Amino acid sequence: MQRAAALVRRGCCPRTLGPWGRSQSSAAAEASAVLKVRPERSRRERILTLESMNPQVKAVEYAVRGPIVLKAGEIELELQRGIKKPFTEVIRANIGDAQAMGQQPITFLRQVMALCTYPNLLDSPSFPEDAKKRARRILQACGGNSLGSYSASQGVNCIREDVAAYITRRDGGVPADPDNIYLTTGASDGISTILKILVSGGGKSRTGVMIPIPQYPLYSAVISELDAIQVNYYLDEDNCWALNVNELRRAVQQAKEHCNPKVLCIINPGNPTGQVQSRKCIEDVIHFAWEEKLFLLADEVYQDNVYSSDCKFHSFKKVLYEMGPEYSSNVELASFHSTSKGYMGECGYRGGYMEVINLHPEIKGQLVKLLSVRLCPPVSGQAAMDIVVNPPVPGEESFEQFSREKESVLGNLAKKAKLTEDMFNQVPGIHCNPLMGAMYAFPRIFIPVKAMEAAQAHKMAPDMFYCMKLLEETGICVVPGSGFGQREGTYHFRMTILPPVEKLKTVLQKDTSFFVP
Amino acid sequence: MQRAAALVRRGCCPRTLGPWGRSQSSAAAEASAVLKVRPERSRRERILTLESMNPQVKAVEYAVRGPIVLKAGEIELELQRGIKKPFTEVIRANIGDAQAMGQQPITFLRQVMALCTYPNLLDSPSFPEDAKKRARRILQACGGNSLGSYSASQGVNCIREDVAAYITRRDGGVPADPDNIYLTTGASDGISTILKILVSGGGKSRTGVMIPIPQYPLYSAVISELDAIQVNYYLDEDNCWALNVNELRRAVQQAKEHCNPKVLCIINPGNPTGQVQSRKCIEDVIHFAWEEKLFLLADEVYQDNVYSSDCKFHSFKKVLYEMGPEYSSNVELASFHSTSKGYMGECGYRGGYMEVINLHPEIKGQLVKLLSVRLCPPVSGQAAMDIVVNPPVPGEESFEQFSREKESVLGNLAKKAKLTEDMFNQVPGIHCNPLMGAMYAFPRIFIPVKAMEAAQAHKMAPDMFYCMKLLEETGICVVPGSGFGQREGTYHFRMTILPPVEKLKTVLQKDTSFFVP
Repeated sequence: MQRAAALVRRGCCPRTLGPWGRSQSSAAAEASAVLKVRPERSRRERILTLESMNPQVKAVEYAVRGPIVLKAGEIELELQRGIKKPFTEVIRANIGDAQAMGQQPITFLRQVMALCTYPNLLDSPSFPEDAKKRARRILQACGGNSLGSYSASQGVNCIREDVAAYITRRDGGVPADPDNIYLTTGASDGISTILKILVSGGGKSRTGVMIPIPQYPLYSAVISELDAIQVNYYLDEDNCWALNVNELRRAVQQAKEHCNPKVLCIINPGNPTGQVQSRKCIEDVIHFAWEEKLFLLADEVYQDNVYSSDCKFHSFKKVLYEMGPEYSSNVELASFHSTSKGYMGECGYRGGYMEVINLHPEIKGQLVKLLSVRLCPPVSGQAAMDIVVNPPVPGEESFEQFSREKESVLGNLAKKAKLTEDMFNQVPGIHCNPLMGAMYAFPRIFIPVKAMEAAQAHKMAPDMFYCMKLLEETGICVVPGSGFGQREGTYHFRMTILPPVEKLKTVLQKDTSFFVP
Repeated sequence: MQRAAALVRRGCCPRTLGPWGRSQSSAAAEASAVLKVRPERSRRERILTLESMNPQVKAVEYAVRGPIVLKAGEIELELQRGIKKPFTEVIRANIGDAQAMGQQPITFLRQVMALCTYPNLLDSPSFPEDAKKRARRILQACGGNSLGSYSASQGVNCIREDVAAYITRRDGGVPADPDNIYLTTGASDGISTILKILVSGGGKSRTGVMIPIPQYPLYSAVISELDAIQVNYYLDEDNCWALNVNELRRAVQQAKEHCNPKVLCIINPGNPTGQVQSRKCIEDVIHFAWEEKLFLLADEVYQDNVYSSDCKFHSFKKVLYEMGPEYSSNVELASFHSTSKGYMGECGYRGGYMEVINLHPEIKGQLVKLLSVRLCPPVSGQAAMDIVVNPPVPGEESFEQFSREKESVLGNLAKKAKLTEDMFNQVPGIHCNPLMGAMYAFPRIFIPVKAMEAAQAHKMAPDMFYCMKLLEETGICVVPGSGFGQREGTYHFRMTILPPVEKLKTVLQKDTSFFVP
């Protein structure tokens, strides 16, 4: 009381004093009950407001964690507080977060990580020798033999060597140079770093970045942050979301009227589409990039997630080399991989790498300089990346268990991809293309007129309205297609296939019965 | 041979083909020896060059990992190859990387991290119960009880609660709200994120960011990346690098002629200066920020690194609250901390947090949106941050060992701070201010005329020349003052005090005997 009065004497409102040990509101109530204060004096105009902030940041959108996900959080809190709902839990099918959905970590990876974290365990008989060998190799390459030291900005040397060896094996012998490997804080970090270097120019010579529609919204977000020009090319939904080079041509021609298209982004296997590109398609894209002088960004984080028996992952790097030196010594390419997807699903470690091809040596210097400002990617994430590219091999102690775990995860995902596709396609009003790869379904929904009208009445986009209703009535959290981009007048949502099979069946049943056109 | 010839027939140079299994140069030599090829056809103009790249990124400088450090790497390779030098190892005193310099991790932190990484260890009798308790608490707050899941964009809830409780304890009861805590990928990430949101406007209304000179070059680098205006204020070297508010006034007045000064950055304890600000100084700065409507950024990553008995760390947050509600409810402040410094020295985990005060609720929404694009900070780094703010307490099993280890690290650093200052000041031509805190000495060097001339002949800045010579002749790697900024005509270098005492003595002896003016 005394304190509040003293403050008021000084002409200040105690409302936001945050009194030590007392609730702010009680102090405020106390003060204003006794003395008439002038609260308007206490709050001046803020410096940082929606009006004064960076307009590029304001323009950023990221639906994977947007309003639907905030609403999901609110509903979870309500459930915790005992508020009755037509469901007992929220199922977060909005994000490719395997372990959050119950997928168990690969034992070998975690063993190596634990050994690196607490090297006393290297003496423990309960850890296999091959895990200890990996851990020793990593630690020897770290400053002070510790994950707690900064690494080189480009990443730990021996891990970059292991990444290069992995790429060489993956691509049937096409060589990879550790000097071209940059370890990153997840793939997102690599993609935004290389885009940051690429963007330049003003007005009509501002850099245009071609992205697929639908896209993974990291791309549109970074383009907005960098004030670059987003150039959309549409994937062909009627043709299993295939990429058609004629559409690339259309997009680039049109873009040239108002910007300088300089970058072409490809997501393969596709997120959110689940499409796996054919070798022919990749060749066409590379030829197009070569013709149009475009820098290629190949987002290949789902390279281990291919389910259809009639398709196969081809890396852009390999196809580029197979097309001969006119291409392989000219086309500038950056490709990305991550610890977060595949069968490891180690999203939390934020590990990743980027391989660059034909990058100008001076630009490599610039890239290292830029990376060095943030010092280095998390060394634990780098170590996780090492295990992703350097898992147990036949003859090693852990090989059998590792293979069993790996096949279980991938086998399950393949099963769930088929289940999801089949169940969606049984419902009139939903059409779902084959889930050839990645971790998502992106079904098209034909929204009935009544629902369209209801959406309009709520001032919501029809697909947002659909997803919000789905969440409120079933507890299933998915992301509206508008967050990824879709042809005007079409509506979709993205749902992960990560929940365990039984739960996924429930989700799909709710989801499809919810949808009565 | 056949392959090379075939390529030449197609009019391509095989030089960069990267032939499967053969060295590139041997293939090139072979081909060009036999047939006269036209190498100019194989290499088209690259898309991404120094000329076409983002000019803001090109302008970035980051000396802590600049040319001196590249040279140090070259010398290390030469030593490995057996090339004789006047020394046997390179001592990297360029960067505050404690564990790389032999500092051992705090056992308790690594035990908790290992338990979180490989939860099977929770059944092991060789881990203490208090570590298990911490690990269980963290895991229960993670999706799927795993470090491998993404966290919320703002960070794991219970870790933000622990950070808030730590701040409240640190600040003698001034309350901290977990909603105002954002976990980050090291402090660098927090600083660049908040600056990214703050920067706006063009021409004379472009955002000006006030930074101390000398500064930690993250600031100048991010300002350059964001194309903001760097506004220098000079610390007072003659007064132990104190911050003088009159100098802030001068700087802001001058800046207003060509930009819109909106942000004031403070580094306390100072990097590279080692200055610890008095409470009075902080109050003056806050009053100045309030008067001039500046958003305050308080870089407080060295808050545990205070060595002089006659000074003490005061947080900006605490002083702000003690100044009363006119300030505490108006001044917008973001303060930063990290796992990398203090006594933990866990740089590799890239953990950190930022606390924001008086941030507009709409801006908080924008901040979460921006952070969500990168999904989340590394969850292992978040867990490490939890142990930094939530270490063992009296009565807990690990308390004694933890306290011993903590005091050993901090006691050693205090000893080394004194040793460094004393030894530098014995040398004519070197003047070193007291190392009150942080991890660096930033001595002034009075470079003799002959050395100045030699530097000019080598087209190098005199301090760069000095550091290069020091490296080449003694193996000691330090960073020239120009990388941090210094008053024109004065020269300095930054050296960490992290090497073990005996090694540091050798370093200082070499360093001071090297300097014969």
